[in-house]
Parts: sequence; C-alpha cells; structure tokens
Amino acid sequence: MRIETICTGDELLTGLTADTNSPFFQRLLLERCALQVRRCVVVPDAREDIIEALNAAAARCDVVLVSGGLGPTADDLTAECAAEASGVELLEDPAVLVHLEARYLKRNFKFTPNNRRQARVPAGAEVVLNAEGSAPLFIQRRGSCTLFFVPGVPREYRHLVETHVVPRIAELGGVRDQSALRVLKTLGLAESHLDALVRPLFEKHPKVTFGFRTHAPENHLKLMARAASLAEAEVAVAAAEAESRSVLGASVFGRDDDSIASVVLARLRAARQTLSLAESCTGGLVSSLFTAVPGASEVLVGAAITYTEPTKTLWAKVSPHLLKTQSAVSEAVAKAMATGIRRETGSTWGLSVTGYAGPTGGDAQNPVGTVYLGLSREGLEQVERHTFFGDRERVRSFAASTVIDLLRRTLVLS
Amino acid sequence: MRIETICTGDELLTGLTADTNSPFFQRLLLERCALQVRRCVVVPDAREDIIEALNAAAARCDVVLVSGGLGPTADDLTAECAAEASGVELLEDPAVLVHLEARYLKRNFKFTPNNRRQARVPAGAEVVLNAEGSAPLFIQRRGSCTLFFVPGVPREYRHLVETHVVPRIAELGGVRDQSALRVLKTLGLAESHLDALVRPLFEKHPKVTFGFRTHAPENHLKLMARAASLAEAEVAVAAAEAESRSVLGASVFGRDDDSIASVVLARLRAARQTLSLAESCTGGLVSSLFTAVPGASEVLVGAAITYTEPTKTLWAKVSPHLLKTQSAVSEAVAKAMATGIRRETGSTWGLSVTGYAGPTGGDAQNPVGTVYLGLSREGLEQVERHTFFGDRERVRSFAASTVIDLLRRTLVLS
Repeated sequence: MRIETICTGDELLTGLTADTNSPFFQRLLLERCALQVRRCVVVPDAREDIIEALNAAAARCDVVLVSGGLGPTADDLTAECAAEASGVELLEDPAVLVHLEARYLKRNFKFTPNNRRQARVPAGAEVVLNAEGSAPLFIQRRGSCTLFFVPGVPREYRHLVETHVVPRIAELGGVRDQSALRVLKTLGLAESHLDALVRPLFEKHPKVTFGFRTHAPENHLKLMARAASLAEAEVAVAAAEAESRSVLGASVFGRDDDSIASVVLARLRAARQTLSLAESCTGGLVSSLFTAVPGASEVLVGAAITYTEPTKTLWAKVSPHLLKTQSAVSEAVAKAMATGIRRETGSTWGLSVTGYAGPTGGDAQNPVGTVYLGLSREGLEQVERHTFFGDRERVRSFAASTVIDLLRRTLVLS
Repeated sequence: MRIETICTGDELLTGLTADTNSPFFQRLLLERCALQVRRCVVVPDAREDIIEALNAAAARCDVVLVSGGLGPTADDLTAECAAEASGVELLEDPAVLVHLEARYLKRNFKFTPNNRRQARVPAGAEVVLNAEGSAPLFIQRRGSCTLFFVPGVPREYRHLVETHVVPRIAELGGVRDQSALRVLKTLGLAESHLDALVRPLFEKHPKVTFGFRTHAPENHLKLMARAASLAEAEVAVAAAEAESRSVLGASVFGRDDDSIASVVLARLRAARQTLSLAESCTGGLVSSLFTAVPGASEVLVGAAITYTEPTKTLWAKVSPHLLKTQSAVSEAVAKAMATGIRRETGSTWGLSVTGYAGPTGGDAQNPVGTVYLGLSREGLEQVERHTFFGDRERVRSFAASTVIDLLRRTLVLS
C-alpha cells in the first residue's frame, strides 16, 4: 500500500510553524497498521502547486492524506483545488452547514459568508463532521486512490486522523494483525543510559520492537508487538515490560497516558493524603502540572507562588530573618518553604522550589540553573540541590518535573 | 527563482524525528534573500525514491537543497543517488579524505572503510569541507539547476546552510531586494473576523503580503513586504500595520515576539504598578505565563492557587459565609478573590479566575467551561463571565489568556 501525505500552507514553508501533525499520523499508522508513509510533500497556499501535488499523488498512491487549507479565509484553497483537480464542482453540504451554524450560535459568534465557505466540499466526496472544529473531513475516490482531506489545526487533525483516517486505512489495507503497545516513562535517566540498560533485552524478545523517545525531561521506552491475535501481542509486550522494569527500577514513573503529576496524585489519593506547594522560580508550573489532571482538587489543597520575599513570609511563613541571613535561593529557605506551606495549609505533604531560572541572577556559588527542591511532612524534611542547563524555559520545566519526581520517589520508598 | 528542498531519512517518515532543519533554512532564506521555498519533499532512505525526487526537482527548479543520507552507514545513499541521477561516477575526493582522517585522529577514533565512504562525491561536484562534521557539502550543476547536498545532523546542517548555501543562493538570485516582516497578535477575535476586517486593506497595500495564523486562543496577522531597499520595505509594512491596527483596534495586544503576559508586565512596570493573582480552575497557568517572562518578579508579587475553599479563605480572604451562600464558581467569589488577594499582598492590581474546567463539575446555570474572571484595584472591581468550549486543557488555556487580556484592555483604557 503506497501512502503519501500533502501538507498545505505558506507557514510550513517560511519557517513560522513546524509540522507536528505529520509525525502524529506517521506514528499512529506505524503502530496501528504497521504501515509507513512513503513521501511527504509540503506545498504553499497556491492553486497550481496544490493541484499538481494532488494529481501526482493520486496517480501513484493508494492513500493520500491532505491537510491544511480548509479554513474560512481566502488563502484556504484546498477544497477548491480538490474539486478542480478531480474535475467536479464544489458544492455546499447541508449537514456541514447545519453543523457550522450550530457551532457559531453556541459560541455567540456572528456567522459570516466567509464561515459558509467551510461547508463547501467537492461533489461526490464522503463527508465526516468534525466534532472538534468547523471544517469537515472529506474523502474522495480517484481511481484506485483514496484521498482524505483534514484541517491542519492540530487538535482537529489529531482527532479526525485517530478516529477516522487511520481506521479507514486499516480497513482499506485489510490490516488483520493486531498490535499491542506499551510506553514506559522514565525521569532522571539519560537517553543513552536508558538505551544501554535496555539493549541487552532486545535479543530475548524478538517479537517486540523497542523504541526510544525523548520528551524532555522525560525519556520514554516504547515496546510494540504485532501478532495474529491481540492476546499474543499483549503477552509479548507484557514480558518485555516486566524485564524492562526490572533493569530500570525506580526510574520508571509510569506508563502510557500517565503523567508524573497523575501518578503522584493517584498515590496520594489512595493514601488519603494531601499536598500543598510553595513555588518560586517555577512560578506556577508545578501547580499547573498537577491541576492539569482532572480531580486534582481532592489532593492539592493549594499552591503559593511566592515570587518575592514578602510573599515567602506571608504565605510560606519563611522568617524575614532567615531571608536576610540566607539567600532566598538556599537549602534553608527551600526547607522553610516546604514546611511552612505544609503547616499553613494543614496538608500531609509540602513541596517547594526556589532557584535561578535565568537569564540573569545567580552568583558564583549558585549560578543560573541552580534550583533547590524541598519536601516536607511531619517528621521528615528533605532538600535536593540541582543544576539544570539550558534556557529559562528548560530550567523551569526540569525543576518542575524533578520536584514532583522527588515526592514520587519518597512515596515509593515509604 | 524556484527553490525546493528534499529531506531524506526513514526517521522523518515514521514520526521518530521532527524536521527542525527545514524551518531554519526557510527563515534564513526569507530574511536574507526574501525568497520562499516552493516545495519541501521528504523521501525515505530508498534509492528509487531519492533518484526520482532529485530528477523531478532538478527539472523544474533553479535551486534544490538536499539534506540527509550522507553518513557513513549503508542506509546513507544520497551521494550515490546524486551520481546516478546525473549520470556521473562517484569519486573519492582527496581533500575530504585528508579532512576525515585528521578528524578521526584528533578524536582517537579508528578510521574504518565505512568512514572512507564519506569522502566520495559525484564527479564534477564542487566540494566544501564541513568544519562541524565529517561529510562535506557538495554542489552539483544540472542544466540551469544548482543542487546543494548537506548532512542532516542539525548542527552541521545549520552551519553549512548559514555560511555557504544561503549566501550562494543570494548570489545566484542576484538578490538585492530586502524584506520586512511584522506580526500583529490579537485576542478575542475569531480568525474569520480578523480576515473580514483586514481583507479590504489588501488592495491598498499591493507591496504587502497579508497572512493569517491561529495560535489558539490568539490569532495573528502577518505583514511582509519586499523592496529594493530595507527602508522601502519597512515603510510599506509600517503603513499596512498602521491601517490594520486602526481596523482591529484594541484586539491587537502586541507584535512580533510579544506575549500577552510580556505586554501587560511591561505596561505595569512602566507605571510602577504591581500585580497579584488568585487562581482556582487555571491552577497556576496564569502565574506560569507571567513568570515565563524574565524579570516578572519586579511586577508580580505572588500568586495564590486557591484550589479548595479553605485556601480561598486563607490566602484570598474570601469569607466562609460567602462561599457557603454563593457557589465557589460565582461572580461574587471571583470579585472577592481579586480584591482579597490585592489587599492581602498590597499590590496595585488583583486578578482572579474561578470556574469549571471539566471534564466533570458545573451545574445547569454554570456548565463545564463557565469561568468567572475578576479584576480589582482601589476603587474598581470588575467581573466577566465567559463560556469556553473544548477539553480541560483548552478551557484552562483560554481562561488564562483571557484574564490577562482583561487586565490589558483595562490598562489601555485607563
């Protein structure tokens, strides 16, 4: 089966936007159907380029996935080009029009003639309404080629590709093999170490494909197996998972859809324990990682973003004397913040972060990138000092994940 | 001048690696030469695909940039394919061989026959040694087309593209035009409305290319002009910017590298005013947007993530009686949070967010997606009620940007 993708959009040819959609489709296609994209073409928002690319791909492929250019504006040309390339008219689809009008009504937006453009699809195309947005998915048959047209907006693209495009490709390709996939997620382990630890297992699990993916600061191990039955594929993956876990130990914090925050919240919830945070340099990142998880409020009672010395005293009860005699970025202050916030909120655990995220700040002893992570519960106080490299965003992100992982490792041991 | 790129590599078609090289080249080409890449093709490490792509591009282009497949391993086929496609032999280049041997010696690596492969280039090609790596840049002429072949390793790619490829393209194209680019960023305006407002200006600014980009919840307007001199290009862009601003009004919050948080922080800093936050459903997102900006601590004194009723009382001084008689998600509580946090921290401004981010929660009157945004300063209290659609992440993200924009609009008017 020959599969190609066509992405349209000037923004993909001028360095303004990176194409994150194609890797999503490629991974899914590989995992679900064991198929690989043969070619990916990016063309500008220009009629002749889009039409030429559509015709060339339709002539040589079984499947073409076309994305982008389905918005309401004048530089959204894909539907027109699809009609012209296949020699049919562009027609307004009544079901799409109803969908669009309802969407605009619900949002209290004015429905303009521009918006109406999104209801037009090539005559004869099959239409699938877009639950996540305006423009529909439409499917054209040209000879032996099936062309899928999806919006380029990542949320909409992902939804339609996952729920409609890839399942349809599996059907077209008569994919009968079943596949099982497991992702093990690690923190605090370099990718090269992860690789070195796991590599010796490759030979013992010939049915399993091992893969690595970096999602800084996390490194993920991907285990995939294909077999005639789902049960067989799952058994192979489970065996590889068990051995991988045993060589990776406590570095594995979770699997599949787990996040470091969801894992810690689940553990605390099960133990009926609560948590509070005092963040300085991470400025709300730790809190937003936790609160991204539905139901976080059962565990997280609150977080104080103590971005100045007065708020460190007001909310985390750090004594002004300590702040005067020690730097705000110090082991003593990290400890005082964690214990202060815990006592103040009456939570089981307190976590704290204080450091220099950059680009300026720091001193010879504690240069930019130095972060103190504090943890406190009744009878236990712990502080770790880390030095993270990279820009402000990277330092903040590493510090946030690492302080949550500090709590996870403590919970695992206790 | 027609310019295309060809990227080779299975890893770019299986979702393992995102192509960050192409955006680098595209931006540089646009900035230095005011030229846009016309097409970007990704092909696998397969002889027939590479040769077909080379021949097709050479036939229609003035310039082709080919990257990847120049390493020492067996799946590095690009140099061979370049020779075969142009009907010449692959020859070992003595200067490259010396360069390679010296590199390996310096690193104490063994020089194997595999490594020697990297010295082979198509007969007649011009060779430029690679100061950052092993494989050289080589340049082929085929008819009126110039093909540049560079390694795919990002550090090497960037070095060779910046120092050799783009300067040579500028020379080939006799580029004397200069370009100016401006991005205007809006909030609270649907993309279709942005388009409808700006479209009437297209005709009046023939030298300017207008473009649109969605970066939810923001919509951006891109203005680009090319002219014989930089001054002329800048004048054209400035005229289009002024008119665009006048039709878009207060929806424009900033331009180019501005973020909604950086714009508000700059305004508050200039006015020597301070800010504090009380966040419930956004759970630290507003705070982390502000603290992502270097120097935020001069303005943001702190933020209380009041994720439960007790912390709303403890930090934002919302009375338990109010919480009992009104829902925590209500206009009255949003107002009390904003004023409470402002008074408690002594800041000039207080902002608050309380709502239902989902997936559960809410009631008939205030369904999931309902968010109250509060703003307070001495003598001024304001609350807006919004309903955002989509999943938890989207509701939180829209609520966070919108509450910052509420403060910006108030500052603009005051």
